[in-house]
Amino acid sequence: MRIVVLAALAASLVVPAFAGDAATAARLRDAALNDSTAWDVLTSLSYEVGPRPAGSPAAARARDWAVAKLKELGFSNIRVEPFAKPSWRRGAEDVEMTAPFPLKLAAVGLGGSKPTPKKGIAADVVVVNSLADLKAAQMGAFKGKIVLVDQPMKRGLGGYGEAVEARYAESEAAKRGAVAYLTRSISTGTGRAPHTGHTHYDDGAAKIPAAAIGVPDADLLAYLAARGVVRLRLKLASKEQPKTVAWNISGEILGSEKPDEVIVIGGHIDSWDPGLGSIDDAAGIAIATAAAKMIAALPQHPKRTIRVVLWGSEETGGAAKAYAAAHAAELARIVVASESDLGSDRILKLELPEGAAGKLEFASLADLMKPLGIAVSPEAAKDAGSDVEGLQKAGVPVFSFVQDSSRYFDYHHSADDTPAIVDQAQLNQNVAAWAVLVYLVADSDADFRGKH
Amino acid sequence: MRIVVLAALAASLVVPAFAGDAATAARLRDAALNDSTAWDVLTSLSYEVGPRPAGSPAAARARDWAVAKLKELGFSNIRVEPFAKPSWRRGAEDVEMTAPFPLKLAAVGLGGSKPTPKKGIAADVVVVNSLADLKAAQMGAFKGKIVLVDQPMKRGLGGYGEAVEARYAESEAAKRGAVAYLTRSISTGTGRAPHTGHTHYDDGAAKIPAAAIGVPDADLLAYLAARGVVRLRLKLASKEQPKTVAWNISGEILGSEKPDEVIVIGGHIDSWDPGLGSIDDAAGIAIATAAAKMIAALPQHPKRTIRVVLWGSEETGGAAKAYAAAHAAELARIVVASESDLGSDRILKLELPEGAAGKLEFASLADLMKPLGIAVSPEAAKDAGSDVEGLQKAGVPVFSFVQDSSRYFDYHHSADDTPAIVDQAQLNQNVAAWAVLVYLVADSDADFRGKH
Repeated sequence: MRIVVLAALAASLVVPAFAGDAATAARLRDAALNDSTAWDVLTSLSYEVGPRPAGSPAAARARDWAVAKLKELGFSNIRVEPFAKPSWRRGAEDVEMTAPFPLKLAAVGLGGSKPTPKKGIAADVVVVNSLADLKAAQMGAFKGKIVLVDQPMKRGLGGYGEAVEARYAESEAAKRGAVAYLTRSISTGTGRAPHTGHTHYDDGAAKIPAAAIGVPDADLLAYLAARGVVRLRLKLASKEQPKTVAWNISGEILGSEKPDEVIVIGGHIDSWDPGLGSIDDAAGIAIATAAAKMIAALPQHPKRTIRVVLWGSEETGGAAKAYAAAHAAELARIVVASESDLGSDRILKLELPEGAAGKLEFASLADLMKPLGIAVSPEAAKDAGSDVEGLQKAGVPVFSFVQDSSRYFDYHHSADDTPAIVDQAQLNQNVAAWAVLVYLVADSDADFRGKH
Repeated sequence: MRIVVLAALAASLVVPAFAGDAATAARLRDAALNDSTAWDVLTSLSYEVGPRPAGSPAAARARDWAVAKLKELGFSNIRVEPFAKPSWRRGAEDVEMTAPFPLKLAAVGLGGSKPTPKKGIAADVVVVNSLADLKAAQMGAFKGKIVLVDQPMKRGLGGYGEAVEARYAESEAAKRGAVAYLTRSISTGTGRAPHTGHTHYDDGAAKIPAAAIGVPDADLLAYLAARGVVRLRLKLASKEQPKTVAWNISGEILGSEKPDEVIVIGGHIDSWDPGLGSIDDAAGIAIATAAAKMIAALPQHPKRTIRVVLWGSEETGGAAKAYAAAHAAELARIVVASESDLGSDRILKLELPEGAAGKLEFASLADLMKPLGIAVSPEAAKDAGSDVEGLQKAGVPVFSFVQDSSRYFDYHHSADDTPAIVDQAQLNQNVAAWAVLVYLVADSDADFRGKH
């Protein structure tokens, strides 16, 4: 339905040439490649706040960090917008193989998982090779068992979307009698560190405890289960916190001529807890703030306002809806929106809002992106980050910088998501691209949805 | 001193042409590249036994696995040779930053570390950039502090030897008043998993608890310590087990003409406990057993005996000395010895025993190795694996296959050492090279130390 609406709007699209000076944009781009702001922001959030799930005490420290950092970087109109965010908090976890020999497994509870009884759940494991095999099994087939879906994730586009369904299959296992659910980590890596992420419980099935185990641990269980009985003991503690709050935090570079017209960019400040949340998503915040800061340092601010938003609850949802609701009155004045939320590796292509890519006026944009190795795609942006979905559904045009994500899922949602895996040169290529595009749009009269 | 002895022996070297048939060697080589034995052995030990430090209950399971596996693969004269091996056993460990904010660190106690008191050690951390800086500090400089040496390991030859000295510096810290010692993991990787290894306590200093922390955790502590007070709480439990036993286990492919002349090859069966001990050193065992098994499958066994040894205590020492002592009576009959103990990645070059490389008789060897991308080095082997050091000191000639170790220290001694990081094609390149060399030497009269 969303696509139909966008297509209708595209028919009346008006896209004037960018007023912004291409030479200025080129200077911004080249300066960004050697700027340390993004690296400094990324490491500051990673090291000074650490992991910061929505609803945790760390999230409040992250909020304070954000306000101080936006101030330090020279942003105006710094806003902290609270919204109700029931949350889930991990407790002690211990997953152990007890037969054929004792071995502590690398495991992490999935977000939202129900806890096990205090003494744990002890049962034999059944290893199923794929989600399709799980779904093909008869009701009751896994009565009293712990089910492991050992479906490897394929590297490359679409791999995550396909693989992640196995992380959401706890109810499929429960319907077939399982007492607990394990998924092979949704990962393209070889590391032992397990990758967490959210559960999807159906109301029609028992809510059984669910965890992810390390890729090598899944290999081990599959090997052993093919040769005999494998028994596990799971202890997963957690609690629901129904009354917690999260915050969407923002700061602005005020427009010099049309400050009421706003470009919304940013990343999310919440993270999963096993790692330091560096590629997911300190990187997005670092890229957006650094790009905006560089534009702010020009002799004159561009015409329109650039707003950097640090969304407060992406991993477990809620921020996008809260943001769209809180900004319902200004939706028509949001020129375009996008979130950076696919790590810190290089951008491969830019997807513009529906109807914009074919316009001749964008020739200078393609020339500006070319030295960065970025193509301007003929296809329109569809996915511009979960946190702008609320805006997008409400009709705000979006763009998307498509990044090289081939390494991203080696680390994503695991303990290995730290600054150690970030390549500063690639991070800065992102900053350069965002600075160019945001500057050009901000200094233009471009209207990506036509008259309204 | 060892070098002097070898040089003296080299003077009387007699190296006849290999009697072994080059065409047979080439067939062995090519078959090895497509053989599954090494992979099967590596995964069997990794998955069916798991981590197996000397002196642990798992080591006894590893011994039983070894005997059964050697039998299954067709080896003769299977021997289990016990030796006394006092050992150290890890207990519960917990290393947490308590200020400036609470964060559980990725940490692992170093082998042999003294335990902390049950309630732990709480102290501020001092981060020292290098071992040289630690040694340059005055006595008493770190009174009451936890010292972290944050010295990154360089990738490439010699990197480990230089970096590992920081793991042995607990007494240097203790002499300067430290209450506990931390080392940045001796690792070239970016993973969070900490890398263990042994301590080196001096008698002249307090024996303080010692642990390794993950590379990203060291980065974090260094970042924060540069900006304010960082406080940690360490809890490390462990116990000494003075009465434990380890076993050197071996099996033979009996020689058809001169069964008393023996070629000793192998790997070590003990491993550190965080990972599955796949590259360190199930790989060495897999390579040696697979090569010997392929030679055994020839229509006729070569003249000399090939003995595969699974040394029982490399990581914490003891096996080499025990082996040389137990085999003192047959030292003169050990033609040559070598251990595979640098992982599963490809071999780059072969170093022969002192004096052998220059001989024209080895031309066929170079031709046989060339398709594997292996050069026959003009330099003689010096390091042929810790477990043959006892034999080497007693005058047994050694050879060495020098492997590409550029990835090895990303994983070594950490939880990430599992079959998931093993490249079967590279593993088999090792098998091919070992099969060729061992076959040629076994079917020859080559005497690498001259008459005795």
